[in-house]
Amino acid sequence: MLENKSQERTSLEQLGEFGLITHLTKNFTLKHKSTVKGIGDDAAVLNFKDKNVIISTDLLIESVHFDLSYMPLKHLGYKAVMVNLSDIYSMNATATQITVSLAVSNRFPLEALEELAAKKYNIDVVGGDTTSSKTGLLISITALGEANEKEITYRNGAKPNDLLVVSGDLGAAYMGLQVLEREKEVFKVNPNSQPDLEPYSYIVERQLKPEARKDILELLKQLEVQPTAMIDVSDGLSSEILHLCKNSSVGCNLYEDKIPLDPTVISVCEEFNIDSTTVALSGGEDYELLFTIDQADFPKIKGNPNLTVIGHMADESEGANMITRGDTKIPLSAQGWNSFKSEE
Amino acid sequence: MLENKSQERTSLEQLGEFGLITHLTKNFTLKHKSTVKGIGDDAAVLNFKDKNVIISTDLLIESVHFDLSYMPLKHLGYKAVMVNLSDIYSMNATATQITVSLAVSNRFPLEALEELAAKKYNIDVVGGDTTSSKTGLLISITALGEANEKEITYRNGAKPNDLLVVSGDLGAAYMGLQVLEREKEVFKVNPNSQPDLEPYSYIVERQLKPEARKDILELLKQLEVQPTAMIDVSDGLSSEILHLCKNSSVGCNLYEDKIPLDPTVISVCEEFNIDSTTVALSGGEDYELLFTIDQADFPKIKGNPNLTVIGHMADESEGANMITRGDTKIPLSAQGWNSFKSEE
Repeated sequence: MLENKSQERTSLEQLGEFGLITHLTKNFTLKHKSTVKGIGDDAAVLNFKDKNVIISTDLLIESVHFDLSYMPLKHLGYKAVMVNLSDIYSMNATATQITVSLAVSNRFPLEALEELAAKKYNIDVVGGDTTSSKTGLLISITALGEANEKEITYRNGAKPNDLLVVSGDLGAAYMGLQVLEREKEVFKVNPNSQPDLEPYSYIVERQLKPEARKDILELLKQLEVQPTAMIDVSDGLSSEILHLCKNSSVGCNLYEDKIPLDPTVISVCEEFNIDSTTVALSGGEDYELLFTIDQADFPKIKGNPNLTVIGHMADESEGANMITRGDTKIPLSAQGWNSFKSEE
Repeated sequence: MLENKSQERTSLEQLGEFGLITHLTKNFTLKHKSTVKGIGDDAAVLNFKDKNVIISTDLLIESVHFDLSYMPLKHLGYKAVMVNLSDIYSMNATATQITVSLAVSNRFPLEALEELAAKKYNIDVVGGDTTSSKTGLLISITALGEANEKEITYRNGAKPNDLLVVSGDLGAAYMGLQVLEREKEVFKVNPNSQPDLEPYSYIVERQLKPEARKDILELLKQLEVQPTAMIDVSDGLSSEILHLCKNSSVGCNLYEDKIPLDPTVISVCEEFNIDSTTVALSGGEDYELLFTIDQADFPKIKGNPNLTVIGHMADESEGANMITRGDTKIPLSAQGWNSFKSEE
C-alpha cells in the first residue's frame, strides 16, 4: 500500500516499542532537574534530592469516561493529563513528570494524541507503554510531583472555624456534558443538523478541555496563604467537602448562596430544568481546588476574583451541612442533597 | 437479591472509590521508609532522601496480553506486578512502591486480584484507580524503585570484551504458552477432556507465574559484581542483546551452545517441532536478567548455577552475531535469526 502523505496520518503500526511515546515527546526537552534519565532504558531515573515525591494515577476508558462521538481526540490526551495534574496540585505540589500508557486500535492515528498538555504545564514525559487494543481506546497516566515536606497539603488538616474556599466556578463541566449529550441525540435523529454550540462554548470547553489549577497554587504562594487542607473537585463539591470533613474530623457549614456559578451554567440549568446547586454539588469534573484556610488569612484572599469563600468548618458533632437560600440547614450527602444521579 | 455468602465473591459494586485497592491492601503495612503517605489522599507522598528514583509503567490487556481461558485470575495481578518489577530490577534498583489501576467488569470478583505479589516482593501499594470496563479486563501498573546513583545499571555501559551473562534459563515461558494454547484448542473440540499438564508444570508456571529476579541482584551484590549494562529479557534474548549493543555502541558474539535451556524446553520443542534456539532468541516473557560484566569479574561468577556466560561484547563494527553449533556466524535480528513470529 502506498503511503498517503496528504492525509498526514501515521498509523501506529509504523512505530515500534515506545514508538508512539518517543514520537509524541521527540520535540520535548527534559525540563526538570529531577529528571535524570527519561525514556530509553528499562525504566526512568529521577532524583528529587531532599524534596518529597507526590504520585497519582488515573485510568480513562472509552465509553466509560469519554465518548469519542463528541470528544475530539486531540483533547483526550490533554484531559487525561489534567485529571492527574489536578491531583498533584491539590497536594500543593509542583507537577514534574508523567508516564503515559495507551491502548489503541492499530488504525488510530497518532496525531490524535499530540496534544498531551505536557508542554504547557512544563511536565517531563519519562515513561510509557503502548499496546494495541481490540476494543476501545484507553489512557493510563501516572503523574509525579515534588514539594517541600512542610508545604504538602493533605486532606486532614482542616480545623473548626477554618474558612472553606473554592477556586473558579462549579458545575460547568457537567452542564457542558449535558449539552453534548443532547446534541448527540439530535445528531442521531438528523445527521444533517448543524449544532450551534457557540452559546455553550464556556461549559463545553470546561467538559472537553479542563485546566488543572496550577495558577491557583502560584496565587496562594504569592498571597502567602498556606491552606490547612486541600482536595480537587473531581466528583462534585458535596463529595469533596465530605472527604475533607471525614479526613480532618470536622464538620462544615456550606452556604448555598455563596457557591460560585458561571452565568452560562445558571441559564443552561434553567434550559434543562435542573437545579444549579445540585449540579455544583454533584456534577463533578470541575477540577477546581477546594481548600480550607485559617480565618486570620481571610484579608489576604478577600475580594480575589479567583477565590470564593463558600462556608466554614465546624465541630465534628455538627456534621456537614448546607445552609440553603431559604436559611434551612440540610445535611450534605455524597450525591448532593437531592441527587439526580441514578445510584443503582 | 440476597447475598450468597457461601460463594465468597465480593462484587466490585459493593466497593466505592479506591474500594478495591483499599480492600486489596488492607492487610498490608507500609514497609518502606520512603513511603510517607500511601492510599487515602489525592496522591501518595514519598521521600527517597538522597537516593535516585526508578520508575516504570506497563499495561496488560485482556485478549492482547493474556487469555482468561487459561490464565488463572489470581495469577494475573501477580504477573502484572512482575513485569514491572523486572524493569526496576534490570536497573539494579530496589523495588519499593507500585500503583495499580484496574478496569474490570462489575461482575468481576475481587478475590481474583488478591494475589498482587506486593507482599512477597516487599512492595508498598501507594495508589490506584478502579473503574468499570464494558469490554475486557485491564491492569496498568507503575512501579517505583530506589538506588544509589552509582549502583544504577543502564543499557549503555557495555564495553568490547565484556562478558555477556544471563540468569536462569530461556524459552520456557514461550513454550508454556504453546502448551496452553494447544490445550485450549483440544478443550474447544472436546470440553470433557482433562489435560494432564503435569509434565509441563515448569514451563506452564514460567508463563503464568513468572518471578522477577530480585534474587539475582542480591546474588550479584554478594559476589561483589557490578554489571556494566543490564536489561531484562521480556521480548526475547535476541532483541535484548540488540538493545544492549545499540545503547552501548558495541558488537556482540553470542554462542548458541551456551544458551541455557531447561530440559523440558528441549523436549517440548521437539514435541512441537520448533527449534529451541529460536525459542530462546525470540520467545520472550522470560523475565531473566541479561547483563554484561568486566572480564576481571569472571572468577566471581564462574560455576554459579544461576548465571551463564553466553558470549562476549565486541567492537561495534563487528555487529551482533550468533556463533552457531556448526561454527557459523549469523547476524542477530530482533526476531531471532529465523523468526517464527509472523510480522505483518
